[in-house]
Amino acid sequence: MIAGIELGGTKTVVAIGNPDGKLIEEFRYPTTHPKDTLTIAVEWIRQRGLPVSLGVGAFGPVMLAGRGDDYGRMLATPKPGWEGFSISAFLRTAFPDCRVVVETDVNAATLAESRCGAARGLDDVVYITIGTGIGAGILAGGRLVHGALHPEFGHLKVPRSPVDEFAGLCPFHGDCLEGLASGPAIAGRWGVDASALAPEHPAWEIQAWYLAHGVLALAAITAPSRVVIGGGVAQLRGLHERVQAEFVRLSAGYFLQAQTPDFIVPPALGQNAGIFGALLLAGGTDL
Amino acid sequence: MIAGIELGGTKTVVAIGNPDGKLIEEFRYPTTHPKDTLTIAVEWIRQRGLPVSLGVGAFGPVMLAGRGDDYGRMLATPKPGWEGFSISAFLRTAFPDCRVVVETDVNAATLAESRCGAARGLDDVVYITIGTGIGAGILAGGRLVHGALHPEFGHLKVPRSPVDEFAGLCPFHGDCLEGLASGPAIAGRWGVDASALAPEHPAWEIQAWYLAHGVLALAAITAPSRVVIGGGVAQLRGLHERVQAEFVRLSAGYFLQAQTPDFIVPPALGQNAGIFGALLLAGGTDL
Repeated sequence: MIAGIELGGTKTVVAIGNPDGKLIEEFRYPTTHPKDTLTIAVEWIRQRGLPVSLGVGAFGPVMLAGRGDDYGRMLATPKPGWEGFSISAFLRTAFPDCRVVVETDVNAATLAESRCGAARGLDDVVYITIGTGIGAGILAGGRLVHGALHPEFGHLKVPRSPVDEFAGLCPFHGDCLEGLASGPAIAGRWGVDASALAPEHPAWEIQAWYLAHGVLALAAITAPSRVVIGGGVAQLRGLHERVQAEFVRLSAGYFLQAQTPDFIVPPALGQNAGIFGALLLAGGTDL
Repeated sequence: MIAGIELGGTKTVVAIGNPDGKLIEEFRYPTTHPKDTLTIAVEWIRQRGLPVSLGVGAFGPVMLAGRGDDYGRMLATPKPGWEGFSISAFLRTAFPDCRVVVETDVNAATLAESRCGAARGLDDVVYITIGTGIGAGILAGGRLVHGALHPEFGHLKVPRSPVDEFAGLCPFHGDCLEGLASGPAIAGRWGVDASALAPEHPAWEIQAWYLAHGVLALAAITAPSRVVIGGGVAQLRGLHERVQAEFVRLSAGYFLQAQTPDFIVPPALGQNAGIFGALLLAGGTDL
């Protein structure tokens, strides 16, 4: 038996699965203080057996470099009680003989979409999520990219749309990608929630401009063969086609990816990507 | 014995080395037509023995994905006779029992700088070269990033400097990074070669702006722990410190890398990075 935990900012999902990463049973509950939250997961798993391997997809920032003492420790976060808490140390104490693999939530979702979702079978994939913030998980040559900490794609600086006068609302950078194209940015620019904006509203032309510039930066740096864009703000029908058309225009015949009709696609796993990814982390080889 | 070939647009370097990648002897000569160029390398190596492994760092674009028939084949290039030529097929025929590893020239240099140069011992490194064009090699988690083809960092789109009115000269994109910050772009903007511009010339403020935005995109996407900037245009004394200062200003306290004093550095291996990298490719495990 293996187990997975998706640790979200508001909800947690715990599941058990087959050794190949397939889900058997899951349980969802609210995320509270770290020990309480993980104790519920540990007890739920224990009632079903002892896992040989446990994968975690966690909200961040979380330290993932190396396999030292800091591995799996939460860094500065406004969420009460979590800063400095070591997810991996807690779980290794609870299950001493179990392999524990910790990843960011977006990396877990990236893995799930690339193994059994919208980018199935591909080794070079980016998964972007657009909601209250903007994040990305990057699979390069079949392995998740961590770097010195982990990608902070939302804080990319992109050229301003010539028809956009909104100042941006990132508290650090003002007009970085997240400051211009997250859900709160769209709401700040137009005075209504993104879900209330009709497909023909000029908001979406601006949104496609910013997302296409983000995708172009990815094409220039890690050259993915597919980009999956998910999250609440990506649910507008036709948005992916518009971002793809804008990316093709920007690349001006240069990028290989601009010739691929299904380069930019919506996710296939929806709400399940995170927990599927946590189980794949538990079941898979070292990523 | 192992061997390495650095295949540049104008010159080729061939070398033999120890199994651990250390150079024993090298020979430099002009690059001409593909068969002539590689025949000289093959004969030179044969006179010294039969290598068990051969690493190549080649000008591009060259196909690197997978290990199929296309691996090591030159793609569209204006250099006469090279388009469609398979470097790996030619070398496998010449040395049937030899392992042949092909990489881009910038990836070979990235490997050399990260193993024995300015980023020694680090697993998350970017090497940027600025000359007639702009390119980058990316090491993520100790492995070179290839993606669907290979990174095309020069064609990243970055915000325009507010004090720059130069239109940019990339034939595809106009004002992409290469169109604004390569050697020809600087010459086009100021009417003189970059080497003729004094350190206090306003050209370098603009150059630092563009390079810092490029570095910020890298920090947001692959999160390297060091960025090495080389090439003819990066030889101005103090340029790396200026790019680092501009990057720190842009990151506004956000990126971990902005707290690292030696995050952006010049290369340590100079002209030798390419051939050292080719030998490391031959000597190393699969990258």
